[in-house]
Amino acid sequence: MTTPDAAAPPPLPDVILHAREFARRGLEEVLARLHPDLARICGYYFGWNDAEGTATNRRGSRTLQAAMVMLAARATGQDEAAAAPGAAAVELTHNFSLLHDDIADGDEIRRDRPTAWVAFGTGPTLVAGDALFNEAVRLLAATQAATTAVSVFTDGVAHMIHAWASEPAFDRTDPLDISLDAYLECCRGKGGALLGTGAVLGTVLCGKPAQDGDLLRRAAHHAGTAWQAVNDLENIWGNAALVGKPGFQDLRLRKHTLPVITAMQSQHPHTRHLRQLLAQPAPDDNALQTTADLLEELGGKAATERVAQHHLTQALATLDEASLPKAVHEDLAELLQFTVTRRPSPHGRRA
Amino acid sequence: MTTPDAAAPPPLPDVILHAREFARRGLEEVLARLHPDLARICGYYFGWNDAEGTATNRRGSRTLQAAMVMLAARATGQDEAAAAPGAAAVELTHNFSLLHDDIADGDEIRRDRPTAWVAFGTGPTLVAGDALFNEAVRLLAATQAATTAVSVFTDGVAHMIHAWASEPAFDRTDPLDISLDAYLECCRGKGGALLGTGAVLGTVLCGKPAQDGDLLRRAAHHAGTAWQAVNDLENIWGNAALVGKPGFQDLRLRKHTLPVITAMQSQHPHTRHLRQLLAQPAPDDNALQTTADLLEELGGKAATERVAQHHLTQALATLDEASLPKAVHEDLAELLQFTVTRRPSPHGRRA
Repeated sequence: MTTPDAAAPPPLPDVILHAREFARRGLEEVLARLHPDLARICGYYFGWNDAEGTATNRRGSRTLQAAMVMLAARATGQDEAAAAPGAAAVELTHNFSLLHDDIADGDEIRRDRPTAWVAFGTGPTLVAGDALFNEAVRLLAATQAATTAVSVFTDGVAHMIHAWASEPAFDRTDPLDISLDAYLECCRGKGGALLGTGAVLGTVLCGKPAQDGDLLRRAAHHAGTAWQAVNDLENIWGNAALVGKPGFQDLRLRKHTLPVITAMQSQHPHTRHLRQLLAQPAPDDNALQTTADLLEELGGKAATERVAQHHLTQALATLDEASLPKAVHEDLAELLQFTVTRRPSPHGRRA
Repeated sequence: MTTPDAAAPPPLPDVILHAREFARRGLEEVLARLHPDLARICGYYFGWNDAEGTATNRRGSRTLQAAMVMLAARATGQDEAAAAPGAAAVELTHNFSLLHDDIADGDEIRRDRPTAWVAFGTGPTLVAGDALFNEAVRLLAATQAATTAVSVFTDGVAHMIHAWASEPAFDRTDPLDISLDAYLECCRGKGGALLGTGAVLGTVLCGKPAQDGDLLRRAAHHAGTAWQAVNDLENIWGNAALVGKPGFQDLRLRKHTLPVITAMQSQHPHTRHLRQLLAQPAPDDNALQTTADLLEELGGKAATERVAQHHLTQALATLDEASLPKAVHEDLAELLQFTVTRRPSPHGRRA
């Protein structure tokens, strides 16, 4: 646990700051029409107000999906402003997913503050999430490309939900019996479905057919998969100050994530010891450190890093296939990299 | 508490059985494409399977909203089959609202069985609700009238969500300070928004403008308001076997519903005694019976019955304004009455 703002997050790339401006109008429109009790909960996750409703300017989401919408829009060569409702819609959906996910997982801390269900109660938080989702559809239904946009959007949400639904079974399954492909498919849906949907939304809102966004969607799916692998690393070895979550989180929750699956499937003679450590009833920090060290010794950390690197490479290679104008290509490459590393690329163009 | 099936629910009117056939195809299509763990949760609330996934044929929802969609479709004079996705969409949405509502309220029993979050856990139940909501939009997005249908639908859901959000504040407010109009507006949103949305959906899915469904929507709003008043009665005095919920439920939860508000605002000399009873920390069944008796003595029960009767009368009067063919009019009148009383009208045409 850290005190608020103990570690400033790394600065955000321009492409994200730019997309935020476009998304902001839609978010403000939505909060203005929501019931004030819901607007307060949503504004809390946007970083716009504290739990009492007083205006703040805190860290919200990284707005990756909205940036993907706006860059896909630029890639069409049309006026990107037409895609602004899409940027807002995916940002609303990302926040809806956080609100519900924190309830589902029982997480108590997000971005160094109590999660919404802790601060506002489960019922109101649940309804706030429902409201954001509904408002995302409303924004898209009011666009010129409403029919296509709503279909693309709900197909993407269905993909994301399918991944959420598939997740609990991994923790109930012996790590030796988990299919790596199935796990990576879950990563793709959790980390990449909404990002990929953003790419197609940006395309169709600018009047282009959905297929024109297909390569960007595939690139986004790879980047999202890579990010989930990085997230698995961070949830064991991550810097709690930076991540805003306590250390060893996934080990405490006995989650069968990539490092555990790959370590257990390593056929290393010490996997038996790892199994014993993972079965400890209430491990303290020392025991968790021992488990984390053994996961590393058995190659679980390195294998997970390789998965992340592979999918980032694939993301960038897929982007290359799209033959885009140089500036848009560079910005998209920076966004994909930032999606995975959450750090601006040293080559990125900065303000 | 009762044993399952101790009291058979009253038979359903034909208009509902008919709408169920139309909705069923969409519901089956949706369950087939959902993750099996989510399909099991949803099928449990549909009454199609037990918690283990074994097929059953139990009492599901009353499908009132779907019946409204199909009758509104018939009122257009067009082929009602075009409205079938709307019937499924509102039925999915009704079940989404039940799944989330049971989590929000912490209710443990619905229709004589454990609620979904008790049977399947909060996280999966929450996600199942999200999935149904998303699938409702998907069904509408695939219709000829997609743009209008999705807008009508999400506007209606926004109305319903606004009512959900307004509800908790009533229980935190002194009953003397609650505006009856504000409470009835909440009833309209909770009980009538989705039913009214069904009326407009049935209209637009048959190719007619949304305004053509306006009178039916207003009638539905009145019927939904009346139903909420009846629900307030049932949640205090209701037959637990029939309602499928334990008696005195709302008194146990210290809810400020219509009987409490109207009794406290009656200016009867015994309101002070009622206030004391309502403030008891952990009342037993005898104490709750005393409270219920006093509510009745102070006119809270009669006033609530009058509200229900008034809005049912208004619903039927609004229906009369619509000048519909006799058969459709009769069926709509029966549906509105059934919505409020949950019992088939003695005049209804039956199979």
